[in-house]
Amino acid sequence: MEHLVEKTIARQTIFEGKIIDLHVEDVELPNGKTSKREIIKHPGAVAVIGVTKEDRILMVRQYRKPMERVMVEIPAGKLEKGEEPIVTAARELEEETGYVCEKLTPLISFYTSPGFADELVHLYVAENLQKKENAASLDEDEFVDLLEVTLEEALDLLDKREIYDAKTAYAIQYLQLQRKVNG
Amino acid sequence: MEHLVEKTIARQTIFEGKIIDLHVEDVELPNGKTSKREIIKHPGAVAVIGVTKEDRILMVRQYRKPMERVMVEIPAGKLEKGEEPIVTAARELEEETGYVCEKLTPLISFYTSPGFADELVHLYVAENLQKKENAASLDEDEFVDLLEVTLEEALDLLDKREIYDAKTAYAIQYLQLQRKVNG
Repeated sequence: MEHLVEKTIARQTIFEGKIIDLHVEDVELPNGKTSKREIIKHPGAVAVIGVTKEDRILMVRQYRKPMERVMVEIPAGKLEKGEEPIVTAARELEEETGYVCEKLTPLISFYTSPGFADELVHLYVAENLQKKENAASLDEDEFVDLLEVTLEEALDLLDKREIYDAKTAYAIQYLQLQRKVNG
Repeated sequence: MEHLVEKTIARQTIFEGKIIDLHVEDVELPNGKTSKREIIKHPGAVAVIGVTKEDRILMVRQYRKPMERVMVEIPAGKLEKGEEPIVTAARELEEETGYVCEKLTPLISFYTSPGFADELVHLYVAENLQKKENAASLDEDEFVDLLEVTLEEALDLLDKREIYDAKTAYAIQYLQLQRKVNG
């Protein structure tokens, strides 16, 4: 793969934030020419597919500032420094939905925007969900509404673009595929 | 949804780049407190699911600087200013793979990282692919290898994390689901 590699010549840190950092790199291309790459460093995140005993998918509605709108997504959250993704997944599930589960199984991990960011999302499937009394509560700058929807309702939300993000679209398609596989 | 909205109090532009911009916003939360949001503005992108007459999925292998590694993805590219996504899709397909198609059908659009970025990816399905002589070539800072893989090979690449991004994982799951639906 050596013929594809871009070598870093110089690296400038533009911003170091609470969540993301921004670097601009001067790179040497495979043909010897140079170019610039704008790169976001992100701690990574988790997301949880949870289906209740009543066959409802757990979703949260929240305001997403980059789009200036409310969106419906599966429960998710950023990794804390040094935290195992599965621990983050259990915590975010409880904080955002008030549910806990007996088992979290890794389904898939994927980079969300490989062209400009290194954000890796780890997707888990939660099994044996149970509503918890006095569940852990949200961070003080997080506000979400819990939704419990059927697969048909989720597809309708996707159609209406209330659900509008990659990980939730993937999760819904996963549940559709499971139904086909399991008859 | 008024109880979820975050109001912008102040907005600082940290960086305006070739591809992305970075803003930091001071926001008023639903409870009246304030917080900061780090926001990436991105022009949006397209990606194309293309399956050849020989039942091979078109993929490209390229170096992804944010991860410092080579990855295999479906053909994709950023929107040019004022360009219709379907036009970008046809162009990127031809430039990255040397294939043209008779029809591009929108499949789904999704935000890739709604927590910090407004990148919207438009996914298309290409029909009746044909290899073109003297196809349009890549941008001068783009280097990719073309791969034509079976669905089974794609699943293996996903398993080995050579395929490792959300849009390509979604595309593969879509093709799996299509096979189940169509028997």
